[in-house]
Amino acid sequence: MPIFKAETLRRLSEEIFVAYGAPAEEAKLVSEFLVKSNLCGHDSHGVIRVIQYVKAIEDGILKPGAKIDVVRETGSSALLRGNWGFGQVVAKRAMELAIEKAKKNSVSVVCAFDLYHVGRLADYTMFAAENNMMGIAMVNSTPTVAPYGGRERLISTAPISYAFPTGEENMFVLDIATSVCAEGKVRVALHKGEKLPEGCIIDKEGNPSTNPVDLYEGGAILPLGGDFVGYKGFGLGLVVEVMAGILSNAKCAYEADKRGNGVFFEVVNIDDFIPVDEFKKRMDSLIRRIKSSKLRPGFKEILLPGEPELRTEMKRRKEGIYIPDRTWEEIMRIAEKKSIDIAMIVDESKKFC
Amino acid sequence: MPIFKAETLRRLSEEIFVAYGAPAEEAKLVSEFLVKSNLCGHDSHGVIRVIQYVKAIEDGILKPGAKIDVVRETGSSALLRGNWGFGQVVAKRAMELAIEKAKKNSVSVVCAFDLYHVGRLADYTMFAAENNMMGIAMVNSTPTVAPYGGRERLISTAPISYAFPTGEENMFVLDIATSVCAEGKVRVALHKGEKLPEGCIIDKEGNPSTNPVDLYEGGAILPLGGDFVGYKGFGLGLVVEVMAGILSNAKCAYEADKRGNGVFFEVVNIDDFIPVDEFKKRMDSLIRRIKSSKLRPGFKEILLPGEPELRTEMKRRKEGIYIPDRTWEEIMRIAEKKSIDIAMIVDESKKFC
Repeated sequence: MPIFKAETLRRLSEEIFVAYGAPAEEAKLVSEFLVKSNLCGHDSHGVIRVIQYVKAIEDGILKPGAKIDVVRETGSSALLRGNWGFGQVVAKRAMELAIEKAKKNSVSVVCAFDLYHVGRLADYTMFAAENNMMGIAMVNSTPTVAPYGGRERLISTAPISYAFPTGEENMFVLDIATSVCAEGKVRVALHKGEKLPEGCIIDKEGNPSTNPVDLYEGGAILPLGGDFVGYKGFGLGLVVEVMAGILSNAKCAYEADKRGNGVFFEVVNIDDFIPVDEFKKRMDSLIRRIKSSKLRPGFKEILLPGEPELRTEMKRRKEGIYIPDRTWEEIMRIAEKKSIDIAMIVDESKKFC
Repeated sequence: MPIFKAETLRRLSEEIFVAYGAPAEEAKLVSEFLVKSNLCGHDSHGVIRVIQYVKAIEDGILKPGAKIDVVRETGSSALLRGNWGFGQVVAKRAMELAIEKAKKNSVSVVCAFDLYHVGRLADYTMFAAENNMMGIAMVNSTPTVAPYGGRERLISTAPISYAFPTGEENMFVLDIATSVCAEGKVRVALHKGEKLPEGCIIDKEGNPSTNPVDLYEGGAILPLGGDFVGYKGFGLGLVVEVMAGILSNAKCAYEADKRGNGVFFEVVNIDDFIPVDEFKKRMDSLIRRIKSSKLRPGFKEILLPGEPELRTEMKRRKEGIYIPDRTWEEIMRIAEKKSIDIAMIVDESKKFC
């Protein structure tokens, strides 16, 4: 049960990507983002992805160092072709461009296509919020979700993220799938041999199921709202498919050759509407009032979007990041194949246990 | 049980608003929007609102003919002060401005504050889609929804709408509350003496309830996702409160003096990303594939966002709009107070029954 410091994992990941042909700067950026996901508790988007990314590099699907083309551009918009570079590299560039354009022109939308997996959306929207702007992000990917009333996997989990700056309170960061749950949660239940809560998935016949195996045997995840008002999550999922999969010149989840993420990023310059200091003060007031709400039976406190991740990050920075044995063995195998001196990076004394 | 032609209701509503001091053009616009809601099946936003609006005019809260001030403006953004004019008039102007700006500058955001009720969001986003653009809208209003884990009403039902143009298929129009249900649905159950489905509301102690009375006795509506993943709807509701209630210089639902709607409108010019004809073809393909999905047991077909409304509209244009007796009596009372010749407008021969 290896537990590591974030810095150790970051360095190891970086060395691996460089060994597999990534430019140093790209290896650093991608590794930082992956470890940040582990820190925040989203292990499904953490260093476990090193295994997938290296395989994609070896298969020629992911092309480190690919040039990013600006296909179309106006003062407030841009469309980027990633040429199958690292999703994080293309997406970071897209968000930088969106921030730059919103600073000059109040609002901007930057879309991107032909890129690999971008990781967690919050990393990009938070970047906008750190720049005193509103960050909005949507991506689509391969299909795992059924339409409301249907039993085929035709829509991706279609996540959406919003980040807003605050004054003294924690940054507001929403990052959610528009399905009842993300695919990662089903996979975790599968690996642990646990049942899922009711209302997450259906089996291949379209019947409700709590057995995670059913998702991987022709079943599907349900859209947010489930049996009752699933047309809402279904509608939001389609919005993401359109904005991140069509407007972006990428593919929709249902298309046979769908790979990687389609990206829609938007930035709004708050200062062009109200003074950003006033905005932040009002964000603080909203957050404080919401958090002070009387509670329902069974709840201990009200957590704002972004708070659970922040708490996990503080804990893991102190206590380290647990990597399951199977994941660790796989990462070591990949590193050894390129004769990376693992012992040097993973100095035993730096491990937490 | 009076059933009327849309045109009859529209004309009557128009005459009433004019009699109560609205400029002819405003009376026409507001009446068109209200009747459109009836046609689409959203009676809670239909001519029943004539009663509320007239009262608001009499109380000096709603000010027909109010000048709209452009408080701030850039090439891609604007902030409008409605000076408590009709929400529909201010919102229509906001969307016109957003479309104009997006045409020139690819993307635009127009916010508005100090305005009365805007009605259905879809009316505005569809206007953008009719102009070959993507329309996005959010509004906030008075509080009816509890935070996830809380039992106080601190958030509005915070609706959100997206409309996208299509080729041969019906326009894609999503218009949903980010709560499990809209307040109107609870009111309808109350008036019919029916129970609500489980998972819609809590009582004042925060316990689940199916009795609509409980909402009006200190209870609250639950955010989309309910007990299970209500943090998602809660997060989306807060996004709407921030974008439509803070960025817009309006108030948030929790604030004591919250009135009317805060408005956030966004328009994206598709042609600055991909050719709009290609976009429409791809929308058609997406819609066709989704609608062709194999069905779950208990479902007869897959309906895309906007389809239920379109079907109701076709039916009601043919069969007329049913107005409950109580609503009709109230509207007649208002009309008679200003000596409006109801008989002339509501020619008995034009009634459907």
